[in-house]
Amino acid sequence: MNAEIIAIGSELLTPFRQDTNSLALTTHLNDLGVELDFKSIVGDRRSDLVNAARIAFGRADIVIFMGGLGPTEDDLTREAVAEALGLELRRDDKIAEELRARFAAHGWKMADNNLQQADVIAGAEAINNPRGTAPGQFLRTEYKGKQKIAMLLPGPPHEILPMFEKDCMERLRPMVPARSIATRVLRIAMIGESSADKRAAAIYKQHQDVQTTVLAGAGEVQFHLRSQAESEEKAQKAVDTLASKLEDEFEEAVFSAQGESLEQIVGYYLQMRDATLAVAESCTGGMLAQRITSVAGSSRYFLGGAVVYDNSLKSDLAGVPPLLIAEHGAVSGQVAGALAEGIRTRCTASLGIGITGVAGPGGGTEQKPVGLVYVGLCDENGTEVVERRFPGDRDRIRMYATQQALDMVRRKLM
Amino acid sequence: MNAEIIAIGSELLTPFRQDTNSLALTTHLNDLGVELDFKSIVGDRRSDLVNAARIAFGRADIVIFMGGLGPTEDDLTREAVAEALGLELRRDDKIAEELRARFAAHGWKMADNNLQQADVIAGAEAINNPRGTAPGQFLRTEYKGKQKIAMLLPGPPHEILPMFEKDCMERLRPMVPARSIATRVLRIAMIGESSADKRAAAIYKQHQDVQTTVLAGAGEVQFHLRSQAESEEKAQKAVDTLASKLEDEFEEAVFSAQGESLEQIVGYYLQMRDATLAVAESCTGGMLAQRITSVAGSSRYFLGGAVVYDNSLKSDLAGVPPLLIAEHGAVSGQVAGALAEGIRTRCTASLGIGITGVAGPGGGTEQKPVGLVYVGLCDENGTEVVERRFPGDRDRIRMYATQQALDMVRRKLM
Repeated sequence: MNAEIIAIGSELLTPFRQDTNSLALTTHLNDLGVELDFKSIVGDRRSDLVNAARIAFGRADIVIFMGGLGPTEDDLTREAVAEALGLELRRDDKIAEELRARFAAHGWKMADNNLQQADVIAGAEAINNPRGTAPGQFLRTEYKGKQKIAMLLPGPPHEILPMFEKDCMERLRPMVPARSIATRVLRIAMIGESSADKRAAAIYKQHQDVQTTVLAGAGEVQFHLRSQAESEEKAQKAVDTLASKLEDEFEEAVFSAQGESLEQIVGYYLQMRDATLAVAESCTGGMLAQRITSVAGSSRYFLGGAVVYDNSLKSDLAGVPPLLIAEHGAVSGQVAGALAEGIRTRCTASLGIGITGVAGPGGGTEQKPVGLVYVGLCDENGTEVVERRFPGDRDRIRMYATQQALDMVRRKLM
Repeated sequence: MNAEIIAIGSELLTPFRQDTNSLALTTHLNDLGVELDFKSIVGDRRSDLVNAARIAFGRADIVIFMGGLGPTEDDLTREAVAEALGLELRRDDKIAEELRARFAAHGWKMADNNLQQADVIAGAEAINNPRGTAPGQFLRTEYKGKQKIAMLLPGPPHEILPMFEKDCMERLRPMVPARSIATRVLRIAMIGESSADKRAAAIYKQHQDVQTTVLAGAGEVQFHLRSQAESEEKAQKAVDTLASKLEDEFEEAVFSAQGESLEQIVGYYLQMRDATLAVAESCTGGMLAQRITSVAGSSRYFLGGAVVYDNSLKSDLAGVPPLLIAEHGAVSGQVAGALAEGIRTRCTASLGIGITGVAGPGGGTEQKPVGLVYVGLCDENGTEVVERRFPGDRDRIRMYATQQALDMVRRKLM
């Protein structure tokens, strides 16, 4: 079975807003073995909506409408879908009563336009919406002689996502031919996208039973594997077999075999080794600490550190000898190493990291160009320093630098 | 005139990828007075593409196809658009020659499938693509007796965005009735979305000549104003008049009247006052420093600071008396104030900020629940401390806390 998602709202056609609900819905649809074949974004004009609905029912088995269920005159989804299907809208007295009660409970008088939220398409089941006023609607119907499933769902993410995950999936599951789906996510660090994809493609192209999607970020490539089969075992075996081959190819560059982030993995390792971490950051300006502390519970292994933008702070907060800076420059392997050692000592941590570099866009020289970054890592046995030249803009260079630092910690603890 | 954008590629129908090019294209179209009425996302199936193209030509004056122009058998946009319009594809010998030369320059032999990139729809103009192999195509044509403009553009952002901004806009501008457009972006800090929208709506609803879009983030609401008129003056006056009224309503909560970010504005003020800033962060874990240093040139006013996750570091790096922590707890107004004072002294800064709180999801108590945050700000005249309770998850609470801190600095320097 295939599906189309229609996101409704003129604000989704401005440069400022984008439908993101559809990504989460797609995950759930795919889990049932339903393929999403089309997405459409339409404004709040009734004729456009009716036409978009007819187009969708003409090409998809399942059509999901998101948004346009509120009380204003711009909220036209109910009317438009009813018109497209040639069905009546009927006011549901129970829903109308609940709307009145909800307003009364707040001591408000309900304006009449709110009642359109109680209009249900003939044959549809209303889905209670505890997080908003407009209920969803679930409908099995026919269009031009073919069986169709339609859902009318509210637009706000905190309303639609729980409603889809629970109420819609419960209803959908028995209507969809049973398929077993297995997924895996492998993530690798610090290998370039084109090189990683070339090496991986030689492998995954031989596994046509697994759908592979390759995503890349600064210092990271992800392989999203997905397989459908008659049985769970078979689907799982298909993704696991390909995952193993990719793990063999990329060896210890694979930091995550189930989708965990690099900062999560570093956290696991630190806890496993009963180790603690402190960081001294210059060009990344707090981004490394921010990534590490984005993980809930990171206080168990992350002590803290210093953001040493100003050179005097490299000495005052992280104990780098001023002479070292004078001799080698703030952006140097020597200073990265001294930052790592200094912050480790100051914080009494098992591991210390120091980062210094030129994030740009200004500040680059011929000898020390924008993108040049040094990362130092220190433990009780000594200090290692890596020199890298990262491409991209300020944000990307900073992201690369934090990725490099986290990956060094991971490899050290592996 | 109205437009439709069609994004092509099966990967855009997975949960992992999303078209974002269309947002930038929409900005440019709107600048010409062209409204985007539809967006569609279609996979790499030829029949789906032909149908989507016909639907689009049936409802939009300008149809922009993104993606599917490469050398593989999945790249079907050229063939599909030609079929939809009933036009021929013709191999352009000059483009074919350039493709061969490009491969030869790398010392590679060109596989024959690359030649499909030299196929141009009859009547279309090829647009040179210096950042990739597939040229774009620009076509004026008729569909069912109506004038249409079609563009076939490559999918990668670094190829399509410069091509659209320059080559397509140059061709489009003389074809679109001249209109003058003016825009303004007002940003306000630390006022709740619903309250801000209610107060603003009472004003902007009386300005039907300006289209107002309201966006909200943690601790920030943005008003995007846009007006079309016969003359530049009139359009500019329309947005400026509404902007003034909104500025009067929200007074000093407006931190930006031309779209600048809060961290940029804080940077301007610090430079203007010849002041420097240092920060000591507990629950935000580096996020505040990271935001401040995301601005290029921030080293002119940001010295650095400490991430004091562990309590002993609150004393060792930011000079908070251990007794103060023992007496009031690490999450307390007293500690926030002491962090601000301590880091200001350690870093010899004009201003010091201290943040402590419970970002969650764990660590909350009845007295100190998740979301409780104290922010201290200290200058040579003394220290102020604010207590806030922020809603949302860990990431949102941390974002709110940094927003609060930046806004306090802004108000202090205003």
